Amino acid sequence: MKLVRYGNPGKEKPGLIDGDGRLRDLSGVVPDIGPAQLGGVGMARIRKANTSKLPLVRGTPRFGCPVNGVGKFIAIGLNYADHAAESGVPIPKEPVVFMKATSCIQGPNDPVMLPRGSTKTDWEVELGIVIGSRARYVAKKDAMSVVAGYCTINDVSEREYQLERGPQWDKGKGCDTFGPIGPWLVTPDEIENVQRLDMWLDVNGKRMQTGNTRTMIFDCAKLVSYVSHFMTLLPGDVITTGTPPGVGLGMKPPTYLKKGDVMTLGIQGLGEQRQQVVGFKA
Amino acid sequence: MKLVRYGNPGKEKPGLIDGDGRLRDLSGVVPDIGPAQLGGVGMARIRKANTSKLPLVRGTPRFGCPVNGVGKFIAIGLNYADHAAESGVPIPKEPVVFMKATSCIQGPNDPVMLPRGSTKTDWEVELGIVIGSRARYVAKKDAMSVVAGYCTINDVSEREYQLERGPQWDKGKGCDTFGPIGPWLVTPDEIENVQRLDMWLDVNGKRMQTGNTRTMIFDCAKLVSYVSHFMTLLPGDVITTGTPPGVGLGMKPPTYLKKGDVMTLGIQGLGEQRQQVVGFKA
Repeated sequence: MKLVRYGNPGKEKPGLIDGDGRLRDLSGVVPDIGPAQLGGVGMARIRKANTSKLPLVRGTPRFGCPVNGVGKFIAIGLNYADHAAESGVPIPKEPVVFMKATSCIQGPNDPVMLPRGSTKTDWEVELGIVIGSRARYVAKKDAMSVVAGYCTINDVSEREYQLERGPQWDKGKGCDTFGPIGPWLVTPDEIENVQRLDMWLDVNGKRMQTGNTRTMIFDCAKLVSYVSHFMTLLPGDVITTGTPPGVGLGMKPPTYLKKGDVMTLGIQGLGEQRQQVVGFKA
Repeated sequence: MKLVRYGNPGKEKPGLIDGDGRLRDLSGVVPDIGPAQLGGVGMARIRKANTSKLPLVRGTPRFGCPVNGVGKFIAIGLNYADHAAESGVPIPKEPVVFMKATSCIQGPNDPVMLPRGSTKTDWEVELGIVIGSRARYVAKKDAMSVVAGYCTINDVSEREYQLERGPQWDKGKGCDTFGPIGPWLVTPDEIENVQRLDMWLDVNGKRMQTGNTRTMIFDCAKLVSYVSHFMTLLPGDVITTGTPPGVGLGMKPPTYLKKGDVMTLGIQGLGEQRQQVVGFKA
């Protein structure tokens, strides 16, 4: 299934994309797509719904983040060998874990706003994992059973804040609008092999990032297991799993986003995003 | 006011500590102490209640975290000059910001559990700031107006996970039980000067940390303003503001918590905590 939340910010309704790509309203089945719906019972209720009888939604409404109430927005750094190389750092021996502020989460096509005075705002297409059930010290072999689904994420990053303003990255990772998620939460049964997905990101139509999840240093099962050894994962938590090569930081010279730029990005089977870059607004 | 949440985990009720130190039930006035109650309107409703008519609570119930629904648990590193020195790092030029997983939040007297295999779990008494209203790029001079109150926090930290397992600290900061908060959320009107509060932490009755908020490198107003330049602060967000000297990491040789240890800690006017250290439980 491809689950979505559609409508104006803060007023999104649950929906799904049917086999013909049409948006259907799920609000008669579940009140939202959030922690209470991601586990076995909630998801079973959605699965039981007769898709062809769900109301078709007219027009082309905005998509919000396909998961409401994300509790933790966990991020993995330097998880593609080539991206580590372009960043000038060695391949990590174990996953690098940091966190994005949940207040940065937004819909997949909402504008990305440059922070006040920012000159180094950068892009990062990433595969997101949405947790469906509580996980604590979960073994790698069992890790995929706690996953509710996958999504496209742009891990927007301000490199000066991240790298030049102290030793910890979180400062440059959670600025408002830095967490476009969606459009879809795609359940695992729709994905043949999550470690074989093409991914890409363009800026103003020019291809910047090209990658495939097969080149992850630590795969999704390892990441879920690993993170669950440091903190309990809860339904609705999101892990964004690192970006392939081609970010602005790695260009010679480094090249960053400016007002008016348009980012388009996508992951095979998980849908596409489009964000216009806008200047700071008080 | 001293606001609390009391009762069993997940079933806490709102309360307040009256002028005689007695616990009174606030559940007839507000449904909880959380983001919806921390702003002007919610807090005004609590203030209007006639304290002497609120029901007295019998017995000595457990205290939970005095704020429900913490959205972001933001932490400041190395914010006391002496603690930076004992950690062997220079005084930061600007605040170091990292994040604790919200899943680590617990009541002030709940046991602290050593993570599986942990040998370097450490203590950190800290002043916590609870945000009462939305703040974005707030000036230092206006920053205190968005604060709902203050609390005692133990920023429990696993030093191996924090410092030896990669460049980012979050891994060692958000383990389950690593965020005791409370007992009280103390409103600013009860604190004469938040930068003149004594703080202390004992392990097994032996004084380990002695400090005063006057030796913060960046004061509370600066921290609220600063963080709000990197992410929007929302009601219910918590900023824990760094620890004074005396952590286990800084001892010669470093000394860490073991099963059976008892931490007691407090901040002048903000109340005391007591945590027994327990071994890992699956």
